[in-house]
Amino acid sequence: MAEKYSELELALNTLVTEFHGASENNTATLTSDQFENMVTKQLPTMAKADGGVGQLLQKMGLEVGQSISFENFWTLVQGLATQLYGLKSNEKTAKCSCLLQ
Amino acid sequence: MAEKYSELELALNTLVTEFHGASENNTATLTSDQFENMVTKQLPTMAKADGGVGQLLQKMGLEVGQSISFENFWTLVQGLATQLYGLKSNEKTAKCSCLLQ
Repeated sequence: MAEKYSELELALNTLVTEFHGASENNTATLTSDQFENMVTKQLPTMAKADGGVGQLLQKMGLEVGQSISFENFWTLVQGLATQLYGLKSNEKTAKCSCLLQ
Repeated sequence: MAEKYSELELALNTLVTEFHGASENNTATLTSDQFENMVTKQLPTMAKADGGVGQLLQKMGLEVGQSISFENFWTLVQGLATQLYGLKSNEKTAKCSCLLQ
C-alpha cells in the first residue's frame, strides 16, 4: 500500500537522503570531495561564491580534508533555512519583520 | 526567466514556506492553534501519537498557549531529521551505524 507523505515529510526526507546519497558507500561521514560534489550539485550558488566550498567548510568550523558528519551538514542546512526565513519575512508585512528582532 | 532549483533547495524552501504559510497573517510566530493545524496536516503521525500536539509542545520546551517561533519549529525539524537519519543509517551497512556513535 502506497503511503502518501506530506510536503514537510518529503522535504525532510530529501534533506536526509541527499546527505546519505552523497557518500558512495553509505558511510556516516562524507569526505571533503563527496561534500564538494554534493554542494556543487545541490547548492550551486554557494559552490560558486567567493572562496567556494573551502570557505564554506571553514564557516562550518571544518578544515579542508576533514570528514563531514550529518551534524556538520545540518549546521549548514540550519543556517540556510534561517537565512531564507529572514528573506521571506522581509518580503512580507512590516509586522512580520519587526517581530523577528 | 524561470530558475531551476535543486532538490535540496526546494526542500529547504518547503520547510520555511510551511512555517510561514501556517500563520494567517504572516506573523513571525504561530499561535498554538496554528501550530496544531500545521502539525495535523504536515506531521499527522505526530499529531495522532500519545499526548498529541500538547506533548509535542512540551518536548519542544513550550507550554500550551505559548506562541511558536521559527527557532522552536526548527528544533522539531532537527529532531525529526536526526531521527530519520538514524533510521536510514540502520537500514544500511553496519559500517554506517557504528560510525554514528
